[in-house]
Amino acid sequence: MMFWVRAIRGCELGVRRLSAVVVNYPPRMLIGCLGGGQLGRMLALAALPLDVRLRVYDPDPSACAGHCAEHVRGEWSDEAVLTRFCAGLDACTFEFENVPAGTLEFVAARVPTFPGPMSLTTGQDRANEKVAFTQVGFDVPPYVLVENAADLAKAITTVGVPGVLKARRGGYDGKGQAVIRDAAMAQQAWESIGSRPAVYEAFVPFARELSIIACRGRDGAIVHYPIAENVHKDGILHVSFGNGSVEAGVATQARERITALLNRLQHVGVLAIEMFEVRTAEGVKLIPNEMAPRVHNTGHWTIEGSVTSQFENHMRAVAGLPLGTTAMAAGATRAAMVNLIGAVPPSVQIARTLLQLEGAHLHLYGKEPRQGRKVGHVTWVGDERVCDRARKIAQQWPPC
Amino acid sequence: MMFWVRAIRGCELGVRRLSAVVVNYPPRMLIGCLGGGQLGRMLALAALPLDVRLRVYDPDPSACAGHCAEHVRGEWSDEAVLTRFCAGLDACTFEFENVPAGTLEFVAARVPTFPGPMSLTTGQDRANEKVAFTQVGFDVPPYVLVENAADLAKAITTVGVPGVLKARRGGYDGKGQAVIRDAAMAQQAWESIGSRPAVYEAFVPFARELSIIACRGRDGAIVHYPIAENVHKDGILHVSFGNGSVEAGVATQARERITALLNRLQHVGVLAIEMFEVRTAEGVKLIPNEMAPRVHNTGHWTIEGSVTSQFENHMRAVAGLPLGTTAMAAGATRAAMVNLIGAVPPSVQIARTLLQLEGAHLHLYGKEPRQGRKVGHVTWVGDERVCDRARKIAQQWPPC
Repeated sequence: MMFWVRAIRGCELGVRRLSAVVVNYPPRMLIGCLGGGQLGRMLALAALPLDVRLRVYDPDPSACAGHCAEHVRGEWSDEAVLTRFCAGLDACTFEFENVPAGTLEFVAARVPTFPGPMSLTTGQDRANEKVAFTQVGFDVPPYVLVENAADLAKAITTVGVPGVLKARRGGYDGKGQAVIRDAAMAQQAWESIGSRPAVYEAFVPFARELSIIACRGRDGAIVHYPIAENVHKDGILHVSFGNGSVEAGVATQARERITALLNRLQHVGVLAIEMFEVRTAEGVKLIPNEMAPRVHNTGHWTIEGSVTSQFENHMRAVAGLPLGTTAMAAGATRAAMVNLIGAVPPSVQIARTLLQLEGAHLHLYGKEPRQGRKVGHVTWVGDERVCDRARKIAQQWPPC
Repeated sequence: MMFWVRAIRGCELGVRRLSAVVVNYPPRMLIGCLGGGQLGRMLALAALPLDVRLRVYDPDPSACAGHCAEHVRGEWSDEAVLTRFCAGLDACTFEFENVPAGTLEFVAARVPTFPGPMSLTTGQDRANEKVAFTQVGFDVPPYVLVENAADLAKAITTVGVPGVLKARRGGYDGKGQAVIRDAAMAQQAWESIGSRPAVYEAFVPFARELSIIACRGRDGAIVHYPIAENVHKDGILHVSFGNGSVEAGVATQARERITALLNRLQHVGVLAIEMFEVRTAEGVKLIPNEMAPRVHNTGHWTIEGSVTSQFENHMRAVAGLPLGTTAMAAGATRAAMVNLIGAVPPSVQIARTLLQLEGAHLHLYGKEPRQGRKVGHVTWVGDERVCDRARKIAQQWPPC
C-alpha cells in the first residue's frame, strides 16, 4: 500500500486549521474479511466510498459478499489458499466470531488483524463472555458450567428452574439453547443442544431486550450508537428499533461498561452487547446476554438511521481511519428494522411489494431463500411512527 | 432470468391489501451498463441491496465501477466483446450520453435497453436538445446552428454578443464551449472548440443555475426530485444544494416540462435538465441549458438526502421495479454536495481530514487523481446550515 504523506501548510478546511497537519489518508486500501455473508457484503458496500476495498475469504462459492468484493474460496484450514488471501492485504477483519481460532492466528501472523484474538476467544465462548462482563461491572445471572449430563443435574439443583442451557460455543440465532422448566427435562435439553460443553443459567425475567453497539478505532477512540430495542422470534432477531428510550442512568452505565470492555479487550472495530432489561423494585437493570465482536444485526438500522453506519465505522476502525459520528441522521429520532427471514416459498418474492411501501429501504442479501435464513432486511427512518409501521409489517412476516 | 410468479391471497402487508396481487419481483437480475466510471459505480452500489447486479462495459481497464461490478473490457466497436457483454443480461443502461450510437443500437437489438435511442440521440446533440426543450414549452435563448467559421460570423450578426459557442456533440464539464464577447473573437473561439458543428447562442444573464431531475419507470410512472441549486467553477460543477428554494409556480412549470419531455422521449430512467434562473421585470423564468439522459452530478446529494437516491431509482426503472419516493430523508430540509476535483498533487490526500468533518459523507470514486478530474464528492444533510458548511469547504477546495 502506498501512503502518501504530505505536509499541508496554511490551508484552512472549514473550521479546522490544517497547518502542518500530516495527511496520510491511504487510498486504495485492501482489507481482508474472514467470512463473506451478508455482514461482509454490507462491510464491502460501506467501504467502497472510502476507496477501501474488501477481499473476503469463504468456503461457500455462493458467498453473497462476492457480489461486490473479491472472493477467495478456501477451507478454513487451507494454509495455501489462506496465504494467497493474505497477500497484499493492508489489514484483515472477520464477519463472524466462529472463525476457527487457528485460521485467525494464521492470518494475524501475516496481516494486522482487527479485532484481535482476545476479542475472538472471548466472543466464541459464553463462559469467557460471562467473566468479561463481570470484570467490567455487569451483573450476570447465576450460572454454572456444564461438561456432561451429571453436571447439568447438579447445576439445576444449584441454580434452580426455570433456567436456560446454552452451548458455550457455536450457537447463533437461538440454536444451541434449551429452556429447562423442570429438572425432568434435563436429559432432553442436554441432547437437544448436542451434548456439548454449556452453561446453565437462571432464566432472566426481562421486560425488554436491548443492545448497545460501539466502535473502537486503532487509535483507541470510541464511539457509541444509541441503544436499540429488539424483538426476537423463534430465537432469531425479528425487529430492531434504533434509539430506544432507556432510563438515562442505565444508558450511561451501559456505555461505560462497553467502553471498559472495548479497552480491556484492546478491541478494534464494532462490538455489540445484547442485554435484558430487568425491572425490579430497586429499579431498572441491564443484564448482558451475549456479546458479538463484530457488526451486529441489531445495528443494521444505522445504514440509513445514523450519519455513519456501523459498517462504515467498522471499516474506518480496521483501516486506521478516524471514526465518524454516530448521531442520528439529520432530523431523525427513531429508526426501525425488520428482518426478512427466508421462508419456503421464498419470501423475497414479496420484495416488489416492500419496494412500494412508503419510505422503506430494502436490503436484500442475494442469498438463496431457505427456511429460517436471513435473506434481507427493511429499514424506516423518521420518528416514533416508523416503529408502528415496522411492527405492522413484522406481524405479517412471512406473509403467508 | 427467472421470474417467480405467485398469487398471494388474504395477506395484508401494512396498509396495502395483497389479495390476489401477482408479485413477480425478480431477484438476481443482471443489468448491463455502458460505461464504468463513477456513475456506473454508484449505480452498482445502489443496485446491490435490491439484489440487482451490474455488469459494466468500458474500454478502460481501471474503470472504477469494476470495483463492485463485473467489468467487461472492450472497444465500443468490438462486436465480439459486446456480444459476450450482452449474454445473460436482463436489461441494459448507460452512464454517459457519449456512448457511440452504433454501440447502443447493437446492444439494444439484443437486450431491452433503457433509456432508449431517442433519449440518447437527443442528449448527444445540443441542436436536438433545443428542439426538444421547445416542444415541451421551454423558452430557449436565441441560437443559430454553425457548421463552419463563415456560419459563425453570420450567427454572431444574427444573435449578437455576448454569446456562447457550444460544440453540438461530445462536450462535458465545460469542454467544447467558448464565450464570445466580440465578433473579433470568432475565429479563436471556433478553433478552441475544435472547429466542430456547434450552436451559437445568446449569453443568458442568469441569477442562479438550477437543475431538475426526474425518473420515469418502465410502466410510465414518474417521480421528481426537489430542484437543486448549482455552482460551477471553470465549467465544472463545484457545489450543489439539494431542495433549493424556488418560486412555487416556476418549480411546478419545471416539473410539468420535464414530465412532458420524459413522456415525449418515452424515456426510462433518470433524466436531468440544467437550467438558468433568469429574473426579469416580468418575473422569474427558467431557461434550459442542457439535458442529460442519465443520473447526474447535481443529484449526488440524493444518496443521503433523499429516501430513494437517483441511482436507486434509475436502477429500479431499468429493472422494471416500482420507483421509490423522492421525499427528503426523514427530517432533512436541505442537502449540500461539494465535488472533489482531482488537483495535482492529488486531492484525495485530504480525505482523512474530510472524514473528521462533522456529519460529512465522503464518496471517493477510486480513480487516479488528475487535474480537473472528478475523484469524489462530499455530502451533508440537514437544514440550511449544511449549505454554509459546504460553501466553506468549497471555497478552499482544492486546498493548496
